[in-house]
Amino acid sequence: MDPTRPLDALQVMRDKRVIVELKSGRQFDGVLKAFDIHINTVLFDARELGVEGASHERLFLRGDSILLVTPKQ
Amino acid sequence: MDPTRPLDALQVMRDKRVIVELKSGRQFDGVLKAFDIHINTVLFDARELGVEGASHERLFLRGDSILLVTPKQ
Amino acid sequence: MDPTRPLDALQVMRDKRVIVELKSGRQFDGVLKAFDIHINTVLFDARELGVEGASHERLFLRGDSILLVTPKQ
Amino acid sequence: MDPTRPLDALQVMRDKRVIVELKSGRQFDGVLKAFDIHINTVLFDARELGVEGASHERLFLRGDSILLVTPKQ
Amino acid sequence: MDPTRPLDALQVMRDKRVIVELKSGRQFDGVLKAFDIHINTVLFDARELGVEGASHERLFLRGDSILLVTPKQ
Amino acid sequence: MDPTRPLDALQVMRDKRVIVELKSGRQFDGVLKAFDIHINTVLFDARELGVEGASHERLFLRGDSILLVTPKQ
Amino acid sequence: MDPTRPLDALQVMRDKRVIVELKSGRQFDGVLKAFDIHINTVLFDARELGVEGASHERLFLRGDSILLVTPKQ
Repeated sequence: MDPTRPLDALQVMRDKRVIVELKSGRQFDGVLKAFDIHINTVLFDARELGVEGASHERLFLRGDSILLVTPKQ
Repeated sequence: MDPTRPLDALQVMRDKRVIVELKSGRQFDGVLKAFDIHINTVLFDARELGVEGASHERLFLRGDSILLVTPKQ
Repeated sequence: MDPTRPLDALQVMRDKRVIVELKSGRQFDGVLKAFDIHINTVLFDARELGVEGASHERLFLRGDSILLVTPKQ
Repeated sequence: MDPTRPLDALQVMRDKRVIVELKSGRQFDGVLKAFDIHINTVLFDARELGVEGASHERLFLRGDSILLVTPKQ
Repeated sequence: MDPTRPLDALQVMRDKRVIVELKSGRQFDGVLKAFDIHINTVLFDARELGVEGASHERLFLRGDSILLVTPKQ
Repeated sequence: MDPTRPLDALQVMRDKRVIVELKSGRQFDGVLKAFDIHINTVLFDARELGVEGASHERLFLRGDSILLVTPKQ
Repeated sequence: MDPTRPLDALQVMRDKRVIVELKSGRQFDGVLKAFDIHINTVLFDARELGVEGASHERLFLRGDSILLVTPKQ
């Protein structure tokens, strides 16, 4: 599917594992469960890359901190 | 419940204990009582992680300072 | 009263003494007299914590500088 | 008069001498002549505190630079 | 004329020589020809203070960079 | 085609290889697949310039981090 | 033509060579082809001042990075 709008591309990633990179450079790996027009984003089973510790069952990220979202490879 | 919108995921956390992390890196632990579309957030029985002192019975956080919200584990 | 919206929690604090903390870390102690959806806030009998000098009879704070509001304990 | 909305508190200060403090810490002393919902503000006979030189007959300040407004004591 | 709204004060300065100071501290001296609610501003015959070189016949300044506007004295 | 609106210029670049430069100076090279009025942008087959590693099959960039978009030469 | 609104002044510069200065201080020299109310701007035959290399046939600049636009002299 070719997206015609950017949020279509996020829709294609829904329920798949993605990398979310913040403007600060921090990166989260999780399953993309929800997003909205502000790019507020919910990841399930999320983990911050390079950080030890348990994963987050649910993680709400405020959209204005997000730089990019891409499928995990 | 699978959220379809990010605020649904916050709704699931209502009345539960969450961690709110600010863009500055400060973290608060409290019971999520209220939030709105700006992610203005109210915690009850809230405490800043790593800071000595009494808990806040009620704590209003302006949404634009918030980076993430996740259930306390 | 359990707030369902964040501004309900501010409403509960009206006419009571609160601590307003700015994003810069500065803190003001005063009686919460007014606020709006932008979190523009008016304190009466307000004093900046850690700063010598007379109190402000009235103090208008622009909302976008505010980080948190909590009842004074 | 007790303000119920923050701009009511500014209205009470109209035509009186106020201190406007910017987010940068700069402070202006002048007579509050006009303001709007963005907190764009006009001072008459205004002077920057700590700065030598003539006063400004009229001074327009863009609201998003403003931190606080308080009556001059 | 006493302004009741901040943009009235700018209207009074139209076609007169003003100083526009940016948030960065840079200052421009020019004839105020146009402005809008975002404080986007057009100066004619404008010159940056403290900078050598020809004047700008027309200079468009995006409003969100502007801190203050005041008549040149 | 001469654009009359800036987004017309992006439309001309659709399905072509572009350079997207972020405000931070980071640059991405990819095929422009989608954009919206916030300049939220989707690139296919995208690669960050100066960074080793696999390309991103799909890359969603939040618009407020973007500085410029130009066709790859 | 005297502009009454700031975007009228940009309209006068359309199809002429301008200097666009960013908030970061970077400057671009190009032919102004398009702009909108956010000051999103398209330049043709654009070149960054002080930077070696080919010109950009088309260059889309997101408006919130722009400080000023002035005719090239």
